Formats: sequence, C-alpha cells, structure tokens
Amino acid sequence: MRTHDWRWVASQKTQATSAKIRPEWLLSLEVKKEAASRLDITGSFIRGLMSGRERLITEASTVDLAHSLQQGEYTATEVCLAYCKRAAFAHQLNNCLHEIFFDDAIELARVYDDYYMTNGKTIGPLHGLPVSLKDQFHVRHAETTMGYVGWVGTFEGKKGTGREFHDESQIVEELRSLGAIFYCKTSCPQTLLLGETVNNLIGSTMNPVHQMLSCGGSSGGEAALMALGGSSVGLGTDIGGSVRIPAAFCGVYAIKPSFGRFSYRTVANTTPGQTLVPSAIGFLSTTLPALELIMKSVLSTQPWLRDPDVVEIPWRDGLSPCRPKLCFAVLRNDGMVTPHPPIARGIDIVVEAVKKAGHEVVEWNPPSHADGTYLHVSHQFMAADGGQHIWKQLNILREPLIDGMTGDYGGGPFEPMPLLEYQDKGLRVKAYRAQYDQYWNSTAATTSTNTPVDAVIMPVAPHAAVLPDKYFHYGYTTIVDLLNYSAVSFPVTKAEEAIDQPDPDFKPMNDDDLENWEAYDAKKYDGAPVGVQIMGRRFDEERLLGIARHVDGLLASR
Amino acid sequence: MRTHDWRWVASQKTQATSAKIRPEWLLSLEVKKEAASRLDITGSFIRGLMSGRERLITEASTVDLAHSLQQGEYTATEVCLAYCKRAAFAHQLNNCLHEIFFDDAIELARVYDDYYMTNGKTIGPLHGLPVSLKDQFHVRHAETTMGYVGWVGTFEGKKGTGREFHDESQIVEELRSLGAIFYCKTSCPQTLLLGETVNNLIGSTMNPVHQMLSCGGSSGGEAALMALGGSSVGLGTDIGGSVRIPAAFCGVYAIKPSFGRFSYRTVANTTPGQTLVPSAIGFLSTTLPALELIMKSVLSTQPWLRDPDVVEIPWRDGLSPCRPKLCFAVLRNDGMVTPHPPIARGIDIVVEAVKKAGHEVVEWNPPSHADGTYLHVSHQFMAADGGQHIWKQLNILREPLIDGMTGDYGGGPFEPMPLLEYQDKGLRVKAYRAQYDQYWNSTAATTSTNTPVDAVIMPVAPHAAVLPDKYFHYGYTTIVDLLNYSAVSFPVTKAEEAIDQPDPDFKPMNDDDLENWEAYDAKKYDGAPVGVQIMGRRFDEERLLGIARHVDGLLASR
Repeated sequence: MRTHDWRWVASQKTQATSAKIRPEWLLSLEVKKEAASRLDITGSFIRGLMSGRERLITEASTVDLAHSLQQGEYTATEVCLAYCKRAAFAHQLNNCLHEIFFDDAIELARVYDDYYMTNGKTIGPLHGLPVSLKDQFHVRHAETTMGYVGWVGTFEGKKGTGREFHDESQIVEELRSLGAIFYCKTSCPQTLLLGETVNNLIGSTMNPVHQMLSCGGSSGGEAALMALGGSSVGLGTDIGGSVRIPAAFCGVYAIKPSFGRFSYRTVANTTPGQTLVPSAIGFLSTTLPALELIMKSVLSTQPWLRDPDVVEIPWRDGLSPCRPKLCFAVLRNDGMVTPHPPIARGIDIVVEAVKKAGHEVVEWNPPSHADGTYLHVSHQFMAADGGQHIWKQLNILREPLIDGMTGDYGGGPFEPMPLLEYQDKGLRVKAYRAQYDQYWNSTAATTSTNTPVDAVIMPVAPHAAVLPDKYFHYGYTTIVDLLNYSAVSFPVTKAEEAIDQPDPDFKPMNDDDLENWEAYDAKKYDGAPVGVQIMGRRFDEERLLGIARHVDGLLASR
Repeated sequence: MRTHDWRWVASQKTQATSAKIRPEWLLSLEVKKEAASRLDITGSFIRGLMSGRERLITEASTVDLAHSLQQGEYTATEVCLAYCKRAAFAHQLNNCLHEIFFDDAIELARVYDDYYMTNGKTIGPLHGLPVSLKDQFHVRHAETTMGYVGWVGTFEGKKGTGREFHDESQIVEELRSLGAIFYCKTSCPQTLLLGETVNNLIGSTMNPVHQMLSCGGSSGGEAALMALGGSSVGLGTDIGGSVRIPAAFCGVYAIKPSFGRFSYRTVANTTPGQTLVPSAIGFLSTTLPALELIMKSVLSTQPWLRDPDVVEIPWRDGLSPCRPKLCFAVLRNDGMVTPHPPIARGIDIVVEAVKKAGHEVVEWNPPSHADGTYLHVSHQFMAADGGQHIWKQLNILREPLIDGMTGDYGGGPFEPMPLLEYQDKGLRVKAYRAQYDQYWNSTAATTSTNTPVDAVIMPVAPHAAVLPDKYFHYGYTTIVDLLNYSAVSFPVTKAEEAIDQPDPDFKPMNDDDLENWEAYDAKKYDGAPVGVQIMGRRFDEERLLGIARHVDGLLASR
C-alpha cells in the first residue's frame, strides 16, 4: 500500500505543502535557474522579487515593525501578506519550510485589523507580528512532523489521538495571546541532533548566503528563512547548539536562554524524558533588539503559572551591564578541536573591538571542556534511551536514518543505559556545573575591576557555515547546554580565501583536531558566514543580551 | 572484630557524643526520673532547669535574639552557652541529637565577640545566632551519619576520602558566612523516608510534648529540640513531609520551599541521583518571622552562583499578600484517607479564623491526589534504584533495616527501574504538575475576587503527632513535594479526648482509610499536637509566609 511507503508519503506531503502557495507567488523557472546559478540568494537577489512597500515591511527590524503595527502605520494584513509572499519565495528557492498556513495567517490578520479598527487598540505587544516556528512547535490546524515522514497525519507519530491539527504548544499559545501571527513552520533535521538540516521529507535546506554550504541545524530552516527576509523573528530549540549554529551559519542572531526560562511544555522533542541535560527554547532574529521584545513579551504572560518547569523570573529591565568597563574572557580553543582560520579571525575581530572600546579581555581557563563534552555526547545522555525514541519514529514508515546520524544510531535501537549509571551521570553533570561556576566566581581575582568575568567570547563552531557532512565537533556549543548557561550568537564576518590561509606549521592535538583541520578548504569556505557567541551564566539572559547589543554596536561601527 | 559490629560501633558513637556534654550540664538521676514520669517535658519542666537569663535567651524569638546580638545586648558567647546547655538538657531527656560540637561553637562565639568588640560591627545578619542542623548537613570538624551506623568514621560511608570531618555543605557555609553558629546536629530516621525518628545509632527520638507519641520525621530531632527550647531555628529537608510532619507533631513551625530555591548541594541524601521528585531544603523554627530572617539572609549570599540547581530568585520583599480579602481553599479529605477528628477540628479552627477575619474559603477539588500519590510512593521514584543506595549503606556494617521500612525495602536490594520507565514516569509527573497548575489557575472562576486561590488549607497528616508505628498515609504531604509547591505548617491546637470522639457512623473509603481510622484512639491521642499546613504555588515562599504569619496572628488572637 502506497500509504505505507515513506517515499510516497513524503512526496505527497511536500507537494501538498507547496500547493498552499498562492499561484501569484509561484516563481518562474527563469528566477529559479538564476537562483541556482548563484552562491548567495539573500540580499539584492530576493529583494528584487518584492515590491517597494513589501521590501520596507520585510526588511524593517522586528522592533520597528511591531511599533508600526501598534501605531497602525501598517495593517496586520499587509504585513502578513508581505511576509507570506517572501516566505513563499524563500521556500521555492531554499526549501526551508515544512508547513505553510498562509491562509489561516492572513485571515487572522484581517480579524486583528478589524479588532484594531473597532476597539482602537491592539491585541497585545506583538499585534500582527509574523513569527516563524521550527517544526517542533504545535500550531492549531497545522501539522508537526519534526522531520519524520512517519509523523505525517499523526500527533507525534500516533494516530487517532484527537490531538492532530488541534493541540498548540504552550509558548505558541502565549505568543498568540500577545498578538503574534503564525504563517509557517521551518525545516529541521531528522532526530534534531545534527548541525545540518536534512530529512526524508524535504531532503535538505542549504545555506542561502552560500548555497554550497549547510544552513546549519537543527533550527536550520529558521535561520535560512531569516537570511532570506522571510521572517524577522522566530522560535527554535537548542540542546547542543541548535539555535546558535544555524544563526551563525546564516548571518543572523540567536539567543539560547537557560532551560527553565521559557516553556518547552507540549513542544515535540527527541527523547523528551531525558531531562538531565535539557533542550532549551531559543529565539532567532535578524536583529538583537527583537530578541528582547519577544522574550520580554512572552514572560509578561507568566509562563510559570502553566509550565512547572519554568521558574518565576520576570523580565528584569534593570539587569543590564551598566559599568563603563566590562570584563570579557576569550576562549580561542577548547583544547579538543582548533577553529579554522576564519573563526580565529572572527574571534580576533570581536576581541579587538571590545578592547578598543576600553573593555578588558582576559584568558578563559575553565575546567576541562573535554570532560564536559564527554558527559554531553551522544552515547551519554542524548542516547541514554538506546536510540529507542528515534527508532520508534523511523519505524512508523520504515524510513531510513539520515546519513549524518548513522555513526551513533545506525545499528538500530540498543540497550538503554542502566538507571543507576544514568543517575550517577546526572550527579557528575551537577558536579561539573558547580566546578565551572566556582571557576567563573574565581575570575574576580583575574580582572582589574575585581568582579567576575561578564561574558565569554568563544566560537560557535570550529568552522564557518559548514561544508555538508564536515561537521565533526560540537564541543563549543554543547558545553553551554551542559552547563545550562545562556549564550548569544551573532554574525561577525565572512571567510575570505585570501586572508584565511591555514597555518602550514599547524600541529593537531588529536585525531578529531586533525579531522576538522583537514576539512578546511580556504577556497570552498570563501564567503561563508562567521558567527561568534558570547556565553553568560545561568538565567543571565537580560544582562547577556545587553552586552551582546553593545558588542554588536561596536562591530557595526568598526 | 568489634569495630565491625554495628552494635558496638553505635554504642561507642553515642557514648562519645554524650561525653561531649560538659560535666556541669549533666542532669541528675532525679531530674531524669521526673522527666520520664511526665508526658510533656517542654515548657515549665525544661524551663525550670535554666537560670533566668538563660531562659530569656533561649525563649526569645529568633528575630529578637538576632536583633539583641546585633545590638550587643547579648554576647555571642552567652547566647551560645545558653543554647548549648539547653540542647544538652534536651538531648539527655529526649535523645534528639546525633552530633554535639558545643566547644567549637563556644570558641567561635568568642571569636565573633572579639570581632564585634574590635571592629564595632557584626559578622553578618545572623551574627552569633545558634542554628541547629538535621544530621544530613556536613559541618567542618563534625561527623555526618544520617542515621547509618556504617557512616561512623567515614564520609558518607566511604573511608579515606580526605573529606571526613572536613567538608561543609554549601548552605552551611552560607549560614556560617552570615554569622550563624553551629553547635549540634539532630536526629533523623535511617533512610530518611519515615515520618518517625528511629535508627540503630540512637534508637528513637520521642515527642517531648507527649512522650508516648512520635516526634515525627524525618527532621524529627530538629522539631523535638525546638519544642524543648534547645534551638530556635534550624535546617531540615523534605521529600515527603520531612520538615512539616515533625514541626506539626512537636508544635513548631516549618516551611518547605520549592526545590531550587535553596542549595541542596553537598548535603548527604538518600538516592541523590533521583531528581525527578526532588527533596528540598526546609527550615524549622519556634516562630514564623525566623523563617523569613533565615531564608532572606541565605538568599543574600546568592547561592545560585555556586549551586547550579538554585534559581536566581532573590528574596522578594514586596511579594506579600496586600489585598484585604484573601481567598483560601480548604482540602478536608484527599479522597484516600480521612483525617482523625483532632485534625478535622484543627482544619475547622483555621477555616473559621480566616472567615471571621473576612477572608473567603472555597472548596478545593483538584486533580486526583490518588494519581499524584501513586506517582510519588516508594516503589516509584524513591525506590527507583531498587533500594540499592539504602542497602549499600546498611551493608557497610550489616546493620538491620529499621522496622518501619521493611514493608518497602525489607527484601534487600532489588532490580532498579528500567530507564525508559523512569523517564516515562518523569513525563507523567510533569503532566500531573501542569494539570494541577491549570486547576489552580482555573479557581479564579470560583472566588469572589476573580483571582486564583491564594493558598490551600490542608492537613499535614491524617492524625495528630502519631502513635509509634501507626503512620500509614503520607499523601497530605507528599503531594506538595510531587508538585514542587511550597508549604508552611504551623501548630493549631492539641487533641482532646473529650471533644475529638470518632464518628460512630464513619464509613471507610478503602482499606487504607480503615487502617488509619482504626488506629485512632481518642484517649491515647489526648494532648497530641495538631498542626495544619497551607500550600502555596511553586517558588511562592515570600507570599506564602506572609499569609501564614497573618493566619498565625488570627489564631493567636482567637
């Protein structure tokens, strides 16, 4: 029966999704050909497909857009139409959407416009603001596949639950109550555990800034859509770098808050019962102030009254770095894998910019990141269930595991970790976190202001937006998840063949280091976006975002 | 070898502890005989053993005492001496201490007095304040046995770690940095999982208010010591009622904050790797304002910078109930086990008092407590490790399991729960919590102010201070731990044979209900303290404590 053939189901699904694009928004073969011939389809290329007012709308910053909607300078409907159109173009060029519900969005925008007209006030602070969602978030009337073909027509793989096309994740409801409008869900890799975006439904999403490279993952479709202007702000998740990696690769911004700040309740996930190193809700945007707007707005709904995992910490406006002199630390190398030349240069750019502005930068010599990474890697927590959750989803339609995951999971489900070992590893994670906290506290002795380091400048990945299948080391992002710290990633520069030449005297520290180093190719990486992250402490989102905005301003004024 | 005989080790240990009492503080045989002949040895009896100034000191409220120490009206040394003396008396009469380190305490008090004299200022807000500790907390130079004979001479059962008599739990360090002085550690039951205080080291601690009854548990020694005036404020822990039960049984106050508000790091515990239903730090005191003083002081040290499990929520002074009309709910019966007449009357007293003051009281019809209790009970989380942790400690010296625990653990260690089942149960706990939160939110529709219920008035246990071996149902306390809510327990009245007669028409709901009901004996319970708890939401400590103080004031002015 064809309905049991994953290829047929996938093909039907993607065709049905594409069929939701209005005929007038379908791109001509010429445009598609032209796009295929370019490395970079962002910027002027996709802009050229939009009208003047549509450009104004889709290229306004989120905060300006929200303001204009509040003031009635734009109607929710015209904003929604502009974003749907640009997202439709983005998807046709870049294959970055899993779900399209433009019509629902436009209908809701009309309702909101009527409400505004009738009542002279808005639904809330996000009135009419288009917000995109990674395809883990449930939206009423829409499907969630999370990259599994077997989830088509089901609720998280189960049929007949009455929850299909009905349930909405808590944070989606919160955003909706604030006036946000949902119009699409974006692509992610099968299993969510990959820094690229590949699955059996859509194939893969490439990098719109450089189409030979990966857009990153797992919130890859989000970042790609934003790079193309099809969204200005959206939701992802991050257990190993999944919002920071795609943001860095596509030249946009992301924040990974600590788990417990925002509601993950009723969001689909891989091995949801694994809570010792939890996946966190993250936000992506084309500008940093948007991250504050969306986080502050969501927290104003008091998510802790509905989600037992959310701690009662409202948005703290006063919590911004007010000292004229900040103390940064820099981690150039995690002792496992040396970043490629473009990343080393990106770090230098940030360090020089903050130093030039009078801030201090000290070295970061924390507890071994190798120890922390060992606790995080897949045969520990993420695969503690023996890959049972992943294989259960794959087996619904016997769809194959994607190539990038065969190393850890290719042999099929295996024996789950014994409970005592699992509990013991949990205690080791806690001890490691406490040791790291203690180190951070101790840095007060190393700074000229005698205060602990404010934030740590470090790579997001040991490479720029990665060549497909060449992502070997996640240690720079996973350490932040293991610690449940907060981090903001931001674009810094692009790889340049001429200046980012590898050191001929490079001596690898180990086999992983060698593997990553050998994967560097100055020519192939030329033009690849380079992002950097700054890491803050637990629940440090307000202060960290304030520092990131300051640093971003310094970079812009270089 | 005698050193391998648990009876010999226990006997040596308790003798060594008693030998730390100054000769002039040893009670005569006459006094001991007189005490043994009474039911109640608190109040005038133990007071009669103290001098006038010692009485003033040991019967001052914690807040007054702390204030007097700040003002230099008392020296730290005289306060310390008075408390050590009274604690020495308490232990000789009531067997409530595991560890005595009066000499260290007095020496430190002298140092603090010198500091105060020399610098004209105090160590901190708790300068010279004696604070007692349940014997789970590590104090430098002292031993921790947690009720296991096998832990004598070890660090948590391990020899030669270099941590014996050295390590100090984080929260103990925090209190020390604030000026608190530690002088003793109090008794707890073997395994910590019992509502009475029995172990192979000291035998048992009975209720000093009514010596035929249990003092409760697991923080039993704390509450008993306080009832005798040997401490005014101290630390316990609570995973199933372990601070609220002994406080209610001994006529003192306790708060169980949500896990994550205070540091549990480096505190000894049973199955420390089990984190899905976590044990929480709790505080006990002879007065409610003391609980605010100690919690506020501890939070001023920013424990979240050192303990990754503590969330960054400073003490919120403004978070108190300011509305003139509060909305209480009352839960008289959890649908599993009917409280005995003294408890039903205790609940009525509280309900009438708050109603009389103009507050509202609605019925509480939450999601099934039976479902929540099922998730909590021992063969689920607490015994998920198959009793391996408990049996490992017992086997150090082959000491027997106490009778009260044989039902669940008597057969020796068993197979741990499979990881997938454990993870699945964790998800069910989360879902239950969210369902309960949703119910709480929904109560806004049932109150006249259209705000959700402020706090829930409910029993601590289905009986007053319990007859030994007659504690069958923990559901009234465990539900709060399962939800990770906050709760305050406070004394309300005492059982009275004449008025607390059982209903002759009582129809038990089930076998558990029958068992508990049959254990009621109006004569034996006569004079037993009756405590009640009010339950607040997660991280609701400030507001809840404010409400408790208000209610306590209403009860006092009846």
